[in-house]
Amino acid sequence: ANRIEESSMAESTYPQKGAHSGDAESPLLPHMRRSCRSTRTAVKVCLLRLKMCMETLCGLEWYFFAAVGILTALLSVLMDLSVTKIITAHHRVYLNLEGSVLLQFLCWTLYPACLCAVASWLSHYVCPFSTGSGIPEVRTMLAGFEVPHYLSVTNMFTKCLGLVCTLSGGSTVFLGKVGPFVHVSTMMGAYLSRLHTHIQGQNKEDAGDQMMVVSTAVGVASCFGAPISGVLFSIEVACSLFPLKHYLPCFLAASCGALTFRLFAVWSGEEETLQTMFKTNFSTKLPFYPLEILIFVFLGLLCGAVSCLYLCCHRRLLRYTRTMPVLIRMLTTEKVLYSAGVGFLLACVTFPHFAGQFMASKCTMKQILTSLLHSKSWLSPSQNASVLELAPCVDWTSSVLPVPLPLIIFLLLKLWMLLLACTLPIPAGYFMPVFIYGAAVGRLVGESLAYVTSGSNWTAVNPGGYALAGAAAFSGACTQSLSPALSAMELTGQFSHTGPIFISTLIANMVSRAGQRPSFYDNLSISKRLPHLPSLKRVSPRLALTPLGQLLRAPSVLLQKAARQAEVQTAVSTSSQADVPVVDSDGEGIHAVMAVKYDDIECASLSKNLGRCLEEVCCVHYPSILLSSHSTVQQAYTVLSVSREQTLFVTDGGKLRGAITWPELKRMLEDLAQDI
Amino acid sequence: ANRIEESSMAESTYPQKGAHSGDAESPLLPHMRRSCRSTRTAVKVCLLRLKMCMETLCGLEWYFFAAVGILTALLSVLMDLSVTKIITAHHRVYLNLEGSVLLQFLCWTLYPACLCAVASWLSHYVCPFSTGSGIPEVRTMLAGFEVPHYLSVTNMFTKCLGLVCTLSGGSTVFLGKVGPFVHVSTMMGAYLSRLHTHIQGQNKEDAGDQMMVVSTAVGVASCFGAPISGVLFSIEVACSLFPLKHYLPCFLAASCGALTFRLFAVWSGEEETLQTMFKTNFSTKLPFYPLEILIFVFLGLLCGAVSCLYLCCHRRLLRYTRTMPVLIRMLTTEKVLYSAGVGFLLACVTFPHFAGQFMASKCTMKQILTSLLHSKSWLSPSQNASVLELAPCVDWTSSVLPVPLPLIIFLLLKLWMLLLACTLPIPAGYFMPVFIYGAAVGRLVGESLAYVTSGSNWTAVNPGGYALAGAAAFSGACTQSLSPALSAMELTGQFSHTGPIFISTLIANMVSRAGQRPSFYDNLSISKRLPHLPSLKRVSPRLALTPLGQLLRAPSVLLQKAARQAEVQTAVSTSSQADVPVVDSDGEGIHAVMAVKYDDIECASLSKNLGRCLEEVCCVHYPSILLSSHSTVQQAYTVLSVSREQTLFVTDGGKLRGAITWPELKRMLEDLAQDI
Repeated sequence: ANRIEESSMAESTYPQKGAHSGDAESPLLPHMRRSCRSTRTAVKVCLLRLKMCMETLCGLEWYFFAAVGILTALLSVLMDLSVTKIITAHHRVYLNLEGSVLLQFLCWTLYPACLCAVASWLSHYVCPFSTGSGIPEVRTMLAGFEVPHYLSVTNMFTKCLGLVCTLSGGSTVFLGKVGPFVHVSTMMGAYLSRLHTHIQGQNKEDAGDQMMVVSTAVGVASCFGAPISGVLFSIEVACSLFPLKHYLPCFLAASCGALTFRLFAVWSGEEETLQTMFKTNFSTKLPFYPLEILIFVFLGLLCGAVSCLYLCCHRRLLRYTRTMPVLIRMLTTEKVLYSAGVGFLLACVTFPHFAGQFMASKCTMKQILTSLLHSKSWLSPSQNASVLELAPCVDWTSSVLPVPLPLIIFLLLKLWMLLLACTLPIPAGYFMPVFIYGAAVGRLVGESLAYVTSGSNWTAVNPGGYALAGAAAFSGACTQSLSPALSAMELTGQFSHTGPIFISTLIANMVSRAGQRPSFYDNLSISKRLPHLPSLKRVSPRLALTPLGQLLRAPSVLLQKAARQAEVQTAVSTSSQADVPVVDSDGEGIHAVMAVKYDDIECASLSKNLGRCLEEVCCVHYPSILLSSHSTVQQAYTVLSVSREQTLFVTDGGKLRGAITWPELKRMLEDLAQDI
Repeated sequence: ANRIEESSMAESTYPQKGAHSGDAESPLLPHMRRSCRSTRTAVKVCLLRLKMCMETLCGLEWYFFAAVGILTALLSVLMDLSVTKIITAHHRVYLNLEGSVLLQFLCWTLYPACLCAVASWLSHYVCPFSTGSGIPEVRTMLAGFEVPHYLSVTNMFTKCLGLVCTLSGGSTVFLGKVGPFVHVSTMMGAYLSRLHTHIQGQNKEDAGDQMMVVSTAVGVASCFGAPISGVLFSIEVACSLFPLKHYLPCFLAASCGALTFRLFAVWSGEEETLQTMFKTNFSTKLPFYPLEILIFVFLGLLCGAVSCLYLCCHRRLLRYTRTMPVLIRMLTTEKVLYSAGVGFLLACVTFPHFAGQFMASKCTMKQILTSLLHSKSWLSPSQNASVLELAPCVDWTSSVLPVPLPLIIFLLLKLWMLLLACTLPIPAGYFMPVFIYGAAVGRLVGESLAYVTSGSNWTAVNPGGYALAGAAAFSGACTQSLSPALSAMELTGQFSHTGPIFISTLIANMVSRAGQRPSFYDNLSISKRLPHLPSLKRVSPRLALTPLGQLLRAPSVLLQKAARQAEVQTAVSTSSQADVPVVDSDGEGIHAVMAVKYDDIECASLSKNLGRCLEEVCCVHYPSILLSSHSTVQQAYTVLSVSREQTLFVTDGGKLRGAITWPELKRMLEDLAQDI
């Protein structure tokens, strides 16, 4: 604040000084420059006043939290608009080719193949860190570790462009938006956090961390217009402890994001007021019979079991991509070809004149979900009229096969197609596909129940409710989290089904978590060898209990208490850490551990009296927390993350054994991950 | 498990042994006893099988989490039923006395006075720890400190009985159920946790903590049938870090509680299926105009401002009760008289022939809230018919005064009545009163808007939505939490108003939190001098930064490394702590710190060779984390709570300065609280 004030003061007091010093060929130029400068000064003063005015209401950081929400939501809306435009264009071309099956086939298959190739090309040649969902990396960053290149501007640009390509693949490629969007929103948060630090002038230590947590909540909230599930997601994605100070900022930013996202639908004239993303027509008077709860319990068990199968296949597939030479070569050197090939293959299967006719492949993913959530049973003939109102759902009921068969074909084919799509080296989210898959599982159970009870007095069985519960349960089980239950509620606004949705999701989660099985994101973390402790613990619980002594390296730089300034300067220049340990040689052992702050030394080193002793040169402080080499990696990690210290010294009976910093801990975890 | 198996084995193998040792007058008795014993054995075997069968599905603790939810919900339902019965009886008596105003006055005023007196008598003579809401104490226990007597059986009994009395006071006493119910559910959790430990045989260290967190979620969930707000409450009530491992158990238990609570309404024939507690009839097509969001922002600011006034008055009132001699005497020795007096005074004001006619005093609190949430404006004459359908709401519209005046009278009178009721020494919740008060504030804003826009094209303004947002905002601002927003949604099932409710609640929260003002519960914690660090930090932020060295006491018991068994036994018998520090006298200073586990010594003390040295007698371990006397109270608290250690030793340059345990930290915080 002071810096801006001073510079504006200086410029307003001596405007003529700068004007005379420059080139003065034209008599008009100095005048223009002066007026331009005075405008700049006026703008600066205005900005300064605005800042002061804003700060009287509440801290400046709150505006930045709100800004993350609003900007991310705008980006989300823009992306949705462009994706819709591209998909509509493709559908129009496809319909215009009606009559020639070959041309239609080429149009249908080459389009996603090209999109996958472009997305893959972008991530291969522009920024290789933009592939995948980014959530495993975000989790690692939230755990405190730096993941280089993952928050760069190039990455954001590549990720956004690639994601538009992926999403334009529609229900053929069948990939989602949430994961990459969480990543994009953390990048947005990181830039705004840097801007905040720049404006504020002072560097708050944990401001960046807080912004990171807030942005994960924003990512989900501005994708779905769902603030509560956004906040719950940010709680679940945290490593093992959620600091309460992030709670209010998360809610604020998520609410701003969700509100902007939904308001845009109003402004664009799409809706009259703020509504949920998926409109459902569930009965509120009698949403379900109390006894149906048992069926929801069964649905939870079923979804849990299917998720175990899915996760197991996914785990194996990831292992193959790391061990099979063909796949390794394809995924390292021939990325673009591989992506185009997989895109082509997926499109062949979903071609409407082939298997696509049984799996609603002409619909977008949103339309498929809407049709699955429809409250009337597809079986009841009297309801066909109302089903037909939702034009795209025609696909499910109008095929030659009886109603449940297309669903079963959809489930069988989509399982391996989903797994195949997960190997694509493009920016893609994996949440929405499993959400829709779960909805199909639920729909199947619901339709079966509607068929069985068609003669009884259970007249109001709602298969849409089962689809909703199934979606929450299956996606919850795959990600081993409960926020999908909230997402399901917020996406549809169905509060009446809270009970069943929670029961199914909880049971599916417990089935999926039984036996410490790793979740979908854990699989990715392990496959990428990220230093994420909870994922490593899933695979090998003993890892976290490894004593520090086994992994610790002796400190590279040490200072004796009797050291002179020359030694201090040498030590500081060779050390890569912020704190240099100072030991006190006393008797036979080295006992007291103190630390010298790097900044203090830099200030002190201006003086040239190299003979002065340590305590004259810089401020030596005792570390407030010490670890012993008997403490475990888990303990070291926990203490380091809650203590706000950058360095923790490890001592044994007063003797210095080493130091724990974030890079050092990262090295240890990476070493441990090698053994898996 | 082994113990039960062994005992059942023992009994089944030697049944005749026990039978012969007892009295054998009747020849039938041994036979009966034998059959009885074999039945007992059979039951035990059955139980054992059941336990093994349950454990194959999932860990035994999950059943206990579910049990907490179900039992607490049953207790909640029972309490609701009895309270409804008592209130209905009183109303019937009051109506039968129609004609004689004096008799009606006596009936109206003596009834709450007696109830308050009984509740106060119970808490004064049976268990003095049952007064108040119990949430400040629960927060302290969640922070890791023991609060003696707060989880005793007597307390549970007294609290439940007293709470029934308080709630039977209805809208005259105007106190709620949530706070005490959270306390009751933590007691329930504590008993079940003990039972779990007993069955499991082994003592898991953090099982009790986990059960405590889970029960707080259950308390809210089984009171409102609202699982999500229950879980968010348990997150908010945590001290500063929420451990993620409690998240799934919380959701499970809260869902079980909420489901049981709502299923009971179905079983009792009250409802056809699971429904929300307060039925509303908001329009889902056009819940609100987008521009109304600005009015909701204003409502948030208004609620925030009113909450600041309320909290300030509450803080002063609490100070008076601690400083004014008259109040001190009344609240220590004349509790029953004081409660009866306050009850009588409150009843005088709400007497239907006096001010009560303007404030719907004949209605229960639930009816008042339902009428405030009604979606049609009270002003529109065409809607009077629909308003009259809700019989108890007649009070608001049928009085001689025009519609907004009763609301204003309600708001003005209830503010001081609420504050007065808060001083009553009876078990009582303070959440529902502020929730309803906020709904009234919101309704006033909504009705004003409906009046202003009555001629314009805003035809569908819904004052009920403002009441809902106001309720969430005001109660959120008073408790400085966001879970009331979720409660508002879950109580009414209004998902369409998510946006407005969140905006109002967030803004009201930020207004209330500005300037580090203490919340309602912080006020109570400070007034009760509880060792709750976040509350203390609110009043004096510097407190948490006090260095440990200023507060630390030198360790009372120390062992030299060269100590013999006799010394070890003396040290252990005099020390009250689990770990006894062992120091290593080396040169001039005392350096290495080790600790002896109490349990180890007890095992070792069986041997009688008192001359053996320390390391032969017991297992000496190096502490894994050490603090220095420069570290702050906040750091010590954080490290102690996350490290799972019972004792943290404080050293300076290798020399032992003292030890931090939970009782020691409690003493420190209580010392610090004295200075406020």
